[in-house]
Amino acid sequence: MSASPETVTTSRSPAATTKGRRHPLGLGQATITGGFWAPRQARNGADAIPSGQDQLEKAGNLQNLRLAAGLGEGEAIGPVFADSDVYKWLEAAAWEYGRNPDDDLLQRIRDLTAVVAAAQREDGYLDSVVQLRYGDEGRYQQLVWSHEHYCAGHLIQAAVAQVRCTGDRALLDVATKLADHLVATFGDDKTVDVDGHPVIEMALVELYRETGTTAYLDLAKWFVEARGHGIIERHGHSPAYFSDRVPVREATSVEGHSVRAVYLAAGAADVALETGDSELLDSLKSQFDHMWSTKTYVTGGLGARWEGEAFGDEYELPPDRAYAETCAAIGGIQWAWRMLLATGEAAYGDAIERMLYNGFLAGVSLTGTEYFYVNPLQLRGSAYPDTGRSPAHGRRGWFDCACCPPNIMRTLSSLDGYLATTTDDAVQIHQYAAGVITSGDVELTVDTNYPWDGSVRITSATPVAVELRIPGWADGATVNGQPVEAGGYARVEAADIDLQLPLTPRLVGADPRIDAVRGCVAIERGPLVYAVEQVDNTANVDDLHLLPEAPVAQDSELLDGVTVLSARGRTGTGHREGWPFTGDAEDSTGDEVEVTAIPYYAWANREIGAMRVWLPRA
Amino acid sequence: MSASPETVTTSRSPAATTKGRRHPLGLGQATITGGFWAPRQARNGADAIPSGQDQLEKAGNLQNLRLAAGLGEGEAIGPVFADSDVYKWLEAAAWEYGRNPDDDLLQRIRDLTAVVAAAQREDGYLDSVVQLRYGDEGRYQQLVWSHEHYCAGHLIQAAVAQVRCTGDRALLDVATKLADHLVATFGDDKTVDVDGHPVIEMALVELYRETGTTAYLDLAKWFVEARGHGIIERHGHSPAYFSDRVPVREATSVEGHSVRAVYLAAGAADVALETGDSELLDSLKSQFDHMWSTKTYVTGGLGARWEGEAFGDEYELPPDRAYAETCAAIGGIQWAWRMLLATGEAAYGDAIERMLYNGFLAGVSLTGTEYFYVNPLQLRGSAYPDTGRSPAHGRRGWFDCACCPPNIMRTLSSLDGYLATTTDDAVQIHQYAAGVITSGDVELTVDTNYPWDGSVRITSATPVAVELRIPGWADGATVNGQPVEAGGYARVEAADIDLQLPLTPRLVGADPRIDAVRGCVAIERGPLVYAVEQVDNTANVDDLHLLPEAPVAQDSELLDGVTVLSARGRTGTGHREGWPFTGDAEDSTGDEVEVTAIPYYAWANREIGAMRVWLPRA
Repeated sequence: MSASPETVTTSRSPAATTKGRRHPLGLGQATITGGFWAPRQARNGADAIPSGQDQLEKAGNLQNLRLAAGLGEGEAIGPVFADSDVYKWLEAAAWEYGRNPDDDLLQRIRDLTAVVAAAQREDGYLDSVVQLRYGDEGRYQQLVWSHEHYCAGHLIQAAVAQVRCTGDRALLDVATKLADHLVATFGDDKTVDVDGHPVIEMALVELYRETGTTAYLDLAKWFVEARGHGIIERHGHSPAYFSDRVPVREATSVEGHSVRAVYLAAGAADVALETGDSELLDSLKSQFDHMWSTKTYVTGGLGARWEGEAFGDEYELPPDRAYAETCAAIGGIQWAWRMLLATGEAAYGDAIERMLYNGFLAGVSLTGTEYFYVNPLQLRGSAYPDTGRSPAHGRRGWFDCACCPPNIMRTLSSLDGYLATTTDDAVQIHQYAAGVITSGDVELTVDTNYPWDGSVRITSATPVAVELRIPGWADGATVNGQPVEAGGYARVEAADIDLQLPLTPRLVGADPRIDAVRGCVAIERGPLVYAVEQVDNTANVDDLHLLPEAPVAQDSELLDGVTVLSARGRTGTGHREGWPFTGDAEDSTGDEVEVTAIPYYAWANREIGAMRVWLPRA
Repeated sequence: MSASPETVTTSRSPAATTKGRRHPLGLGQATITGGFWAPRQARNGADAIPSGQDQLEKAGNLQNLRLAAGLGEGEAIGPVFADSDVYKWLEAAAWEYGRNPDDDLLQRIRDLTAVVAAAQREDGYLDSVVQLRYGDEGRYQQLVWSHEHYCAGHLIQAAVAQVRCTGDRALLDVATKLADHLVATFGDDKTVDVDGHPVIEMALVELYRETGTTAYLDLAKWFVEARGHGIIERHGHSPAYFSDRVPVREATSVEGHSVRAVYLAAGAADVALETGDSELLDSLKSQFDHMWSTKTYVTGGLGARWEGEAFGDEYELPPDRAYAETCAAIGGIQWAWRMLLATGEAAYGDAIERMLYNGFLAGVSLTGTEYFYVNPLQLRGSAYPDTGRSPAHGRRGWFDCACCPPNIMRTLSSLDGYLATTTDDAVQIHQYAAGVITSGDVELTVDTNYPWDGSVRITSATPVAVELRIPGWADGATVNGQPVEAGGYARVEAADIDLQLPLTPRLVGADPRIDAVRGCVAIERGPLVYAVEQVDNTANVDDLHLLPEAPVAQDSELLDGVTVLSARGRTGTGHREGWPFTGDAEDSTGDEVEVTAIPYYAWANREIGAMRVWLPRA
């Protein structure tokens, strides 16, 4: 599959650690072949990745690198982090090649890699925008905003994916040269500074895993430990936004810019994994728990505030003004995955599933080529799209700040790597997708139409010890006819495994401290959170109440074939004329109406109108 | 009272129009002498205005003007709109002199005026920051952001206040020279551009009122009409933020930056008033109604979003993330006042009262010298102050962007001007404050301890026709023992008037479309909205529910003497462990507890802790 498979020593997956309690099974070991995800990955490979390259060309990102490589003259275009989008695309392309080797794609990867290599400075430095705009003397002058390490991190991640999936070492050479330059430049006796936007931490640990060079791990550790000691504040910036208010191991929650926060936490988890730092790991467990119980949307979306693209205070989770950036869901998945590898705890698999099917997947259209940056849980019918990121615009083909689209691409093309792990005595299946899982001599075939159907059949030639994640919501699940507990792993040794996950639609309420959805319920079925969209409903969705009857599931052809839920509701009444704060009567409701709900991830694929995940109780 | 009272031909009040259905009674005609407002005005004059000048010195605003005047060398400091804070202070000082003439204050006004005059360029241009940073060639190059007209507007308003209250024409000479320069520079055949931040519209109309120069009115009209025709968009900016998406007369609501929006609307109302443009006035009525019914907090606070300091969509009114900038409440009062003058409708008086006692007054501490920029209706106990404007910091003595403090000062020192108006046959009293109202030969003495007490006694030597605003909330009000209807004016002709406004505490709910406060009630008494603050309560305020019993009012010494309300509530239960979206049970509550509420305006004067205006129903 890869050009020179001999060179691939680590798992062909993101976070290919061997130190955790679980060992990842990479691409080629876990392979999605059908069901829910295969067509999404196919569209990602056939449409999104090619069109992504066109977008990078159009936006000037590729030209920046060419100019830095001396291939022409001109000025850098776009934001300071423009290179990172190219690297995320290269990473996506590498994983995609690993899934589905294609000569044309490989050639494109190689051509672009050659440009990147040519853009690199003699001493290993590389950042086309800084090179073009500020020259050598402009390096690291504004690291809090310049994203130079952020770009380096994404380059390294792309290089690691490239060597793992194509065997090509060309980008890895660039990455090690850049990493060596960083090692030579940053540290206690050198430049004491950190990038305003983490990601370099995860990247350096991966590069250490790939190369065995401990200096990379040491530098990752240094970047993690350097935070929280006033570096950002000394530059005159508010430290909370940059996760620099307290040392990572002393933090008790996440705060500030949500993508920065979860990328840093994921990098810290990588460091803890490789160094065996249990204190750091325990702190990260507490931080994740706190985030998950007080600062996460029901969709797994992260980040409650547009202002600063930030986490809010505890229980501050407005559905309408949810930021829930697509990249934050991706970073959340990355963090949870590392915690899963480190601890083996099923709760992280549950978290990944929730983020994956909801907060993440809502970020991309059914066609695979249009995106949401921001993923609210409510849009009013009267919403006005006042900014380019407003969901009231509908999905968009690209953004001025285009971090999300190539991030989605790399997540989809590496998704196989998140399905399963091994331990010495078992295979763990964390996400249920139709496909094949191979571990040593063992080959498991997974047959399922999950999440539409709760039946998962796992077969192998001989009995295999398998640990199946039973989601926390799956009360009543059975394995080979035996009841198993929800929220943990069910271990079974068999050649033929029949897992049944009950997909009865559920109405869920919220902790009453989440003020913004008081008196409301959301609808879930299996791992999917549902949404009520105006296009499916005759009653005004802005003002629709839900009756406490169980919704009825129904297969449909809608939206590429989803299970639609029918429920009963009532129209809203009690509207005030003029001044809206009068009278103290409780809410009343009007006529009974049918309510149709679709999976949240599929909203905004037909027309833009009112949408809500949380509906008031009738 | 004023140095040369003969020169004052207009009412000594803001918006001294003679064209409306109501004629304002300015300072000296309406005078607050006691009760609720007098000590606030006294502290404003004695403490806030002097300390404001010190703050302007410390922040560099005054030095900028000195440098522009050639008194020293150096670079401009602070934001581009730095001059405007000086002008707002000068305006505040002028009204304060009008209230309470003081030689020292007059000297300070004159000294500072001399600096401003010296900083003005030969051709009338004046903006110290632009002059120092960009020179003559930098003028109007970035009008969308440069605030040059905004600064000019505040200068003109200060000049008008100065001539009205001191008789001094020095600043008026600067203002007319600057206005003449603007007239010569902007218009259809000249520079077609508008300032990103309105205020010049109101200012030019006032200058027209003061001078009779119709060119100023014409230019104000031109600035109003120029908006909404793509000027901002041509500069590459989003027009909604700047109220430039549609022509003012075609707008159906307010949108974008809330202060900019209401300042523009107030200026348009001034234009409509002076030109008799009933179409424009009708449009502004609709816009105000729409704002008031769908985009205003129960406190009268305006602006639901931190991002862009903006109005949200209809019914988007989160209490915790309310921006509700103090300046927006001030702009809202200015707009409503002009609408009241134009239409004579009591609803605008009601709106002014609500904004004044709540959204505005919360912006200043009891001491008068510490301020809130942002005025949320909820603060969680765990809130983290991640920005300088965060209310979780508590009130602050000044801000980097210091628009609010001097705006509060000028509002308090000109407050007398908002109390009363006249028509040919009556005096209208819009706001109830202890004081004296003089109109021609008539002198009315108003005796009241409102808003603590609902009794207002108005006496005069002979019977006078008085129209008393009966607030919309005042069901059961009586005038001289006769029931009068709430929400309108009650006309009475007598020498001794006894108005009784019932101050029974009220629980109010919200239109159910305001999702963020579903299932909650707020407590009001008279014009005051109440808040529950942690410092007064043993139960956790974050999680406190209110029982539907009428709160009991009790005089207290707290907070300079407020009426405290005692209510009954219940603690919250139903907290989830870990993942917060489980179970579909409705909210439950625990132990019954006493709840103490204080006027919202007085919160955050003791310690910073949890606070909420809206409490869930127990």
